[in-house]
Amino acid sequence: MRLLLKGWYPMPALEFIRSRLDPEWEIRLCDREQVPASLEESEVFARELGEAHSFVSMSWSAAMPGAPELLLLQLPGAGVNQIDFDAVPPQCSVCNVFEHEIGIAEYLVLAILEWEIGLRHMDASLREGVWSDGFALGRPLHGELHGKSVGFIGYGRISRETARRLRPFGVRLRACTRSPEKGDEFVDVIADMDGLDAMLADCDYVVVACPLTDETRGLVDADALARLQPSAVIVNVARGEIIDEQALYEACHRRQIGGAVIDTWYRYPTAGDPDTERCLPSRYPFQSLDNVIMTPHASGWSGGLLERRWRVMIDNFNRLSRGEPLLNVVHAPG
Amino acid sequence: MRLLLKGWYPMPALEFIRSRLDPEWEIRLCDREQVPASLEESEVFARELGEAHSFVSMSWSAAMPGAPELLLLQLPGAGVNQIDFDAVPPQCSVCNVFEHEIGIAEYLVLAILEWEIGLRHMDASLREGVWSDGFALGRPLHGELHGKSVGFIGYGRISRETARRLRPFGVRLRACTRSPEKGDEFVDVIADMDGLDAMLADCDYVVVACPLTDETRGLVDADALARLQPSAVIVNVARGEIIDEQALYEACHRRQIGGAVIDTWYRYPTAGDPDTERCLPSRYPFQSLDNVIMTPHASGWSGGLLERRWRVMIDNFNRLSRGEPLLNVVHAPG
Repeated sequence: MRLLLKGWYPMPALEFIRSRLDPEWEIRLCDREQVPASLEESEVFARELGEAHSFVSMSWSAAMPGAPELLLLQLPGAGVNQIDFDAVPPQCSVCNVFEHEIGIAEYLVLAILEWEIGLRHMDASLREGVWSDGFALGRPLHGELHGKSVGFIGYGRISRETARRLRPFGVRLRACTRSPEKGDEFVDVIADMDGLDAMLADCDYVVVACPLTDETRGLVDADALARLQPSAVIVNVARGEIIDEQALYEACHRRQIGGAVIDTWYRYPTAGDPDTERCLPSRYPFQSLDNVIMTPHASGWSGGLLERRWRVMIDNFNRLSRGEPLLNVVHAPG
Repeated sequence: MRLLLKGWYPMPALEFIRSRLDPEWEIRLCDREQVPASLEESEVFARELGEAHSFVSMSWSAAMPGAPELLLLQLPGAGVNQIDFDAVPPQCSVCNVFEHEIGIAEYLVLAILEWEIGLRHMDASLREGVWSDGFALGRPLHGELHGKSVGFIGYGRISRETARRLRPFGVRLRACTRSPEKGDEFVDVIADMDGLDAMLADCDYVVVACPLTDETRGLVDADALARLQPSAVIVNVARGEIIDEQALYEACHRRQIGGAVIDTWYRYPTAGDPDTERCLPSRYPFQSLDNVIMTPHASGWSGGLLERRWRVMIDNFNRLSRGEPLLNVVHAPG
């Protein structure tokens, strides 16, 4: 059976993949030197995809070449928003992987604690010999997470792993989700999406951690932001488009809310030279705001992620060749 | 009964204290306008202390004026290293307060996560449009706390509250303490101080959280630092003098260890004007090192601290006037 890999992503893991794949698998590579920027226009790619039984990609469109043998479109990440399911060949399953919930949960606890405590500012001051945040001089105290409240929009793996870690800090935890029956011992209050307005008004931190769908695109708009407390912080580790770009900028800039922690954005760099290309992540100047923590879609991009993901994907390829049930099926054949 | 308060520290809490003290208490104040920099030389202070039944102070020496009525020397913090117990009047109890373990535990989790993830660096880069930490470009991944190990020197309130919060991150936790029988469900391995060398060699993070005593002064010296792994990080939230100043600087500067998170220092500002006085916290230029996170003895200096501490202290004053047992007695009369 033939496994088709493309781009830079699988390269560092190639030996790891080879050593764990069952022997009936053959790996085929389409790297950037072989194919033009647009895969859809590449003859090499069309030939390889035509023979592949499994293909690793975050995207699929109606413009893809024919894939009569394809049985498994394996996403190397979680988000299915670049998959046109109607265009997937009828015999093909689509599966995704997670494993980023550990890294994202760590990022979220870090970002919330940093918002309260301000290590960054203290470090910069003390390097100049300024002790104004220290105990000795009777200055204002930094914040405490203890006693605060955190609400999650969406209560999937990311929110659950975050709630598990936040629990011992003595915070109140609530969530709104399409599936409120998924509540657990970590979250105090869980409601369906009709409870969103009440949750927004109640929380010190609101974490956006739901999939981007037609229902969630623009879900956090100017009206939703207006419901937040004046000191509340909105945190986005899902997809930029779930929060209205202009409304978010205005709410931060006008200090209508406490601020924002933003990891997922509105503009991304193209596949140009990463050493020289610069790309501000929004058409609004978030970089000029001091009540924003901004990171480059890196929250889940942590040390153990890729190995964990490849282990799941390799398991899936071997399950396919052994005729066993696949993991994380988001779209079944037919 | 007379409660003597001095300095700036109690002033913001004065109404809070008044409203909760039993009516037999009278508050006397010695603020900076009434007495010179040296309390011991002040006649006003000598008269007030001579009549006080309780006095709130972090320090006591043989140079203190007579205190024939004093029954309770109440420390407003935990550290007893500025108390000359031999000079305390024989009828007087000495009590301390904690309550900083919540703030310090939050600081410790923050500092360790920041070391792994580097929010500060990512934020600064993205403000310039640089995405080099982001997922999109195949760059190095940031660290993960998951799977790491943290060791505590000392396993008192601070270490316990930190271990409780670190537990769900999937870290291995160990501790060395004079009282290894104090192990709990949060720590995996607990040993007496003879186990220190083994712990130092085993941990990704070593947190110094023991009292400063004759035994712990200079405990973490060049030999101890040499036992750490090359990537290990030493964290001090206890007292500067527990880690040898020169050895710590050299270990960081020469990158013999991964680095340090330092909240407690070797040089402190005097009581000069906080808006103008600058004081670098060591005779070595830690501020020039990029493998150090430095904060101004602020780890426990968090929002809820003072109210929690005053509640305990006020409880103690009322216990004294009611003849009830005192809380947190570190030195009994006689």
